[in-house]
Amino acid sequence: MAKQESELKEQKEMPIAYELAKKQKEISVAEFFTKNRHLLGFDNKRKALLMAVKEAVDNSLDACEEARVLPEISVEIIEMSEFKYKVVIEDNGPGIVKKQIPNIFAKLLYGSKFHTLKQARGQQGIGISAAVLYAQLTTGRPVKITSRVSKKEPAFYYELNIDTQNNKPVIAKEETVEWAKEHGTKVEIDLEAEYVKGNQSVDEYLKQTAVINPHITIIYTNPKSEQVIYARATDKLPDEPKEIKPHPYGVELGMLMDKLRWTESRTLQSFLTSEFSRVGPGTAKEICEHAAVLPNTKPSLVSRDMAEKLLQGIQKTKIIAPPTDCLSPIGEELLEKGLRKEIRAEFYCATSRPPSVYRGNPFIIEAAIAFGGEIPKEEKSNILRFANRVPLLYQEGACAMAESIVETNWKPYGLQQSADSIPFGPVVIVVHMASVWVPFTSESKEAIAHYPEIIKDIKLALQECGRLLGTYVRKKYRISEQLERANMFEMYIPEVAGSLSVLAKEKKEKILQGLQKMLVKPEIKKEITEEGDADDKLYRMEFKKENEEAREEAS
Amino acid sequence: MAKQESELKEQKEMPIAYELAKKQKEISVAEFFTKNRHLLGFDNKRKALLMAVKEAVDNSLDACEEARVLPEISVEIIEMSEFKYKVVIEDNGPGIVKKQIPNIFAKLLYGSKFHTLKQARGQQGIGISAAVLYAQLTTGRPVKITSRVSKKEPAFYYELNIDTQNNKPVIAKEETVEWAKEHGTKVEIDLEAEYVKGNQSVDEYLKQTAVINPHITIIYTNPKSEQVIYARATDKLPDEPKEIKPHPYGVELGMLMDKLRWTESRTLQSFLTSEFSRVGPGTAKEICEHAAVLPNTKPSLVSRDMAEKLLQGIQKTKIIAPPTDCLSPIGEELLEKGLRKEIRAEFYCATSRPPSVYRGNPFIIEAAIAFGGEIPKEEKSNILRFANRVPLLYQEGACAMAESIVETNWKPYGLQQSADSIPFGPVVIVVHMASVWVPFTSESKEAIAHYPEIIKDIKLALQECGRLLGTYVRKKYRISEQLERANMFEMYIPEVAGSLSVLAKEKKEKILQGLQKMLVKPEIKKEITEEGDADDKLYRMEFKKENEEAREEAS
Repeated sequence: MAKQESELKEQKEMPIAYELAKKQKEISVAEFFTKNRHLLGFDNKRKALLMAVKEAVDNSLDACEEARVLPEISVEIIEMSEFKYKVVIEDNGPGIVKKQIPNIFAKLLYGSKFHTLKQARGQQGIGISAAVLYAQLTTGRPVKITSRVSKKEPAFYYELNIDTQNNKPVIAKEETVEWAKEHGTKVEIDLEAEYVKGNQSVDEYLKQTAVINPHITIIYTNPKSEQVIYARATDKLPDEPKEIKPHPYGVELGMLMDKLRWTESRTLQSFLTSEFSRVGPGTAKEICEHAAVLPNTKPSLVSRDMAEKLLQGIQKTKIIAPPTDCLSPIGEELLEKGLRKEIRAEFYCATSRPPSVYRGNPFIIEAAIAFGGEIPKEEKSNILRFANRVPLLYQEGACAMAESIVETNWKPYGLQQSADSIPFGPVVIVVHMASVWVPFTSESKEAIAHYPEIIKDIKLALQECGRLLGTYVRKKYRISEQLERANMFEMYIPEVAGSLSVLAKEKKEKILQGLQKMLVKPEIKKEITEEGDADDKLYRMEFKKENEEAREEAS
Repeated sequence: MAKQESELKEQKEMPIAYELAKKQKEISVAEFFTKNRHLLGFDNKRKALLMAVKEAVDNSLDACEEARVLPEISVEIIEMSEFKYKVVIEDNGPGIVKKQIPNIFAKLLYGSKFHTLKQARGQQGIGISAAVLYAQLTTGRPVKITSRVSKKEPAFYYELNIDTQNNKPVIAKEETVEWAKEHGTKVEIDLEAEYVKGNQSVDEYLKQTAVINPHITIIYTNPKSEQVIYARATDKLPDEPKEIKPHPYGVELGMLMDKLRWTESRTLQSFLTSEFSRVGPGTAKEICEHAAVLPNTKPSLVSRDMAEKLLQGIQKTKIIAPPTDCLSPIGEELLEKGLRKEIRAEFYCATSRPPSVYRGNPFIIEAAIAFGGEIPKEEKSNILRFANRVPLLYQEGACAMAESIVETNWKPYGLQQSADSIPFGPVVIVVHMASVWVPFTSESKEAIAHYPEIIKDIKLALQECGRLLGTYVRKKYRISEQLERANMFEMYIPEVAGSLSVLAKEKKEKILQGLQKMLVKPEIKKEITEEGDADDKLYRMEFKKENEEAREEAS
């Protein structure tokens, strides 16, 4: 049957390929993500609300920090009707220049951070325009932007839609407006959403954001008109991360060939020193030698085979690790402080690992643990995940951080754990990854991909914290055993005293008193902290020393 | 400090926003996926090999079926050097017209299936060009294409690269060549990869593909030069799925407004009947009435508010479910047959659900179960997942199919299961989703997103199979209990006979023979199949009837 049909078609002298070809068409990235909006995190109404707030707040924080302004951000969520909300985010950032406003908010794959290697919350040029796309899809309303860059310029107001067929902004309204603010940006988005408090809510996201960013102030008004203010705990902005060039060890053949094609350098020698980090004239020469290529070769004349040799030359040359001033970790002290502020526990510790590298991208893993106190005992440990100071609330199971926790053996550290599982016990585990490029498992940036280098380093950080936890838990256990023995002895004192008084012909009371004086009960709290402190300090100093040495080596 | 800096900048009269604006830039989708290639499934060498083969084979199968040609596909993997492989896929499909070749293979987001609602393996216009992008990145080599559309035209040969900065094909070579084949396409890709047999390998993918597509022939040569031929089991091509229009119930406000803007219809009435499926003149009128909008309104004059009313009108109007001739399920019979061919078990069953709808997209869930026999007893059940006849080998944990299996209570069906887990026991569970748009959780198309409508239908399919399984397992258990009792009785016969012979003064041998005659042991295998068959048939007929009724209602 099928064969006949196909023969029939060939008899008509028009190959079917021509018919099929008519349907071939370009797909705009906006169309693609409209159909696949779950890839952007807009799977359901509840998550959509979080995503919209998150993208706007993350952008505000990035902009403020880039402009070295202490961020003060207001977030307001207003219920318009059932499942329809208005989200208003206003910052005191540097503002956005007029002609960039349409592209930034109403064009997907447009941004400043994709092409630079530098730690930032945003990196893909998708986030905020995805929120605008979703808003337009569900309410048909444009995004409203007010932005001002200085008191000497007016504030500009825009209403923007996205032309999804062409992934281009459509300006619905454009005007100058009066605005009390000297500089800053205000974004208003109307979208289909649902407001629910709890684990994966806007409330939780803002709370965690405040903990991990002690330098910011957030004024949050929820749809019930309740206001929460997270005031900044420090006036010190985090160190400004520097932009870096890619490290030669992370480059792949195709990328190298691309770079050779587009470079303005006129020799291989200058190409290598100007396009990569950690390559000085000496290293460049060494690479060329190892590759058996002349340093004065013109980059555009480097063939595929030569490029392959060059790549082998790079692998053979010892090049120091990438600089790490592109990263701005939180630091052990602030991390522990943040945890102490938020969670009432008996024991805290934090560690900030020396920088490491995956695919040429430097990254730093930080971890912290809180134990005991008011943390529920009979539950799975609570995991707080952060990437470049942004809380990750969804897809824990798919994240390299959860994977690393599962693969770590927590029994020696005093926690219960069944095979391939998150440990049980009164513990909160915090993991933060700071990197010039966080490899997320999807465009919605909810989980970190399973690169072995990253998992290895997370595990090392967890082990450092785990050892401190273990010492504490063991000591707590030992002392409570001593206490139990002492209590037992105490119980028998009257009986022993009675017998002794008969044998020794002494008064029972005297013996009783004597025995009671002999009884020393350890003071559990004091002992642990004192003994613990001594051990802790030793441990912590060792870690610090090791880490600092590694850091010095890296820089 | 920070404040001073920012004030300093303002004194210089150049707002920092201008400086930041310089970095704002468009990001090409090819650049985006180069940096995020794990989103496309190219996370590691082993998976990269599978992805490249899979994308090429899936395209070949789609093309053959569209042209109504019985697919015959050759797959060859050749090891060039350590971690460098050449993949060659050749089909007997309709071929590709000359001018489309560069775009199809060397431009991301280009294809024929994204804009049509019709069941197909490919749907995004990313797959094969992603493989080419990865190959270029890791080996720097172009993809090589040979294609011919008819014996009356020459075969064309192309070598193609991707200009990642602009997401455009670069033609490295272009010529006509001699080719014995009358029509078909051959793709050669050189890439960094690793060949490993086993669970998530190319071998497994091809095997499962052959099982679920009994009409195809695959000739597979692995890097060890071992050849496997999967010969077709039927000469009947699957029914050709028809293209459909979107169903009104699945449309969202933004999409509706977009359609109103771009339509060629001159009245709302004709717009509704021509742009949507299942909307005739009567239904269109009813929608307009419910929306309080005049049917002869010009679509371009429909405002946002009117469009919102129209959407409410649609929700209020009873519209029959979308047609399902856009889908081509495998069918209960072929599904069970495929399973029987591949897995040696005692018991098989399969079900094909009536069509259902999520976000306006029709879909069909099919499930099958094999139990006992040579399937390992003490392991987690083996899950085989398929979407539009393509095996899904990765990210089981993130898939709605695994979720549905976990949420189903398998204990009544005779399997062991701990809370929130895949059941244990000698069982293979197959789930297939056929849809005009499968909502994958990532561009790599490995897992299905958790839409409640989809999960509900998968569970219903599993329950249908589960009930049949339960009947079988219970019967098996009951009969083995009977057997045990009979065996127990048999053991006591000599003793009972002895006592009786004393009491009744009969010869012991006679009583012994009499008692043994009374003993009837059930023949476990026979009983089950006979009894089971009767029950099974009843069950199966009921399901079939219900499903058919539902199907009739739907069509």
